[in-house]
Amino acid sequence: MVDVKVERLLVNYKTLEDFKRFQAYGNQELSMLEDLQNEIVENDSKSPFYGIYFGNNLVARMSLYERSAQYDHYFNPPQDYLVLFKLEVLPDYRNRGYGKMLVDYAKSFQLPIKTNPFINSHDFWEKMGFEMASYNLERDLGENPFIWMPKGVKEAVQPPHRTLGNIVEQEDEETK
Amino acid sequence: MVDVKVERLLVNYKTLEDFKRFQAYGNQELSMLEDLQNEIVENDSKSPFYGIYFGNNLVARMSLYERSAQYDHYFNPPQDYLVLFKLEVLPDYRNRGYGKMLVDYAKSFQLPIKTNPFINSHDFWEKMGFEMASYNLERDLGENPFIWMPKGVKEAVQPPHRTLGNIVEQEDEETK
Repeated sequence: MVDVKVERLLVNYKTLEDFKRFQAYGNQELSMLEDLQNEIVENDSKSPFYGIYFGNNLVARMSLYERSAQYDHYFNPPQDYLVLFKLEVLPDYRNRGYGKMLVDYAKSFQLPIKTNPFINSHDFWEKMGFEMASYNLERDLGENPFIWMPKGVKEAVQPPHRTLGNIVEQEDEETK
Repeated sequence: MVDVKVERLLVNYKTLEDFKRFQAYGNQELSMLEDLQNEIVENDSKSPFYGIYFGNNLVARMSLYERSAQYDHYFNPPQDYLVLFKLEVLPDYRNRGYGKMLVDYAKSFQLPIKTNPFINSHDFWEKMGFEMASYNLERDLGENPFIWMPKGVKEAVQPPHRTLGNIVEQEDEETK
């Protein structure tokens, strides 16, 4: 087996070119490119992404962001936690354990983790020891949050939110 | 052309069965089903979803949620706004303007709208008069927010956030 490792990705033109191969390329990447072009960030500065290179090719990546306890609505007690997003392995490099390597790396910080998986990846997250968070409309909207908790951490107790609180009301007659 | 209209969807077993045909079926739908089974919500109560029926079949849907001004980080001045999510037209019913009918319905509330489009649907949102919001890592993480503003509303001025603030730091040596 080829020796690969997880590494922190640096913001530079090569990284941003590599990112174009990933399906979840979006505003974040475009904004990083703009920041680099406008010299708002230095070349080779640290990015919020971690990845795995196979030779010279970036073949897997994820982004990690640390949210502070004051914004925590997922864990009990409220605490600093990681948001993991854009976990993706390029099609030709799947089933080699690269996704697991990235997730294990995220777990190594020993903070609880929240992610919003792509559709159809729930089995993967369960295999990684994540569980589906109790759904809360106001907090989650269209998300399907999955969470991972180190020992001693529990899921936040949800307030009994089961009302239609902020759902848009309009006279149904108008739609006729 | 068959006469179709946008209507508020009711929470009942038929609706929840209809939802299974949509790709974005997830925690939200499972939670609604559980609430119905446990009689936490009444049968035929209003749901946060709007949809279009073709005959007896639900062929398009979206969810709308109103967030109050105190949580607004998208618009200027901060104000109540709608979050639109899970807009989806079943494959056999595309290119008939149903997506636009749903979006027009959302616009009819005359509140600004924020959505996080599926990958590869940016062209659609631009055609609908939405624009890509300026990306802010802390606010948006893996999202690609698109926004629509009624007359007189502007995009929020973003604080100069372009730092690596809360990005996870770890000694790079550990990864060797």
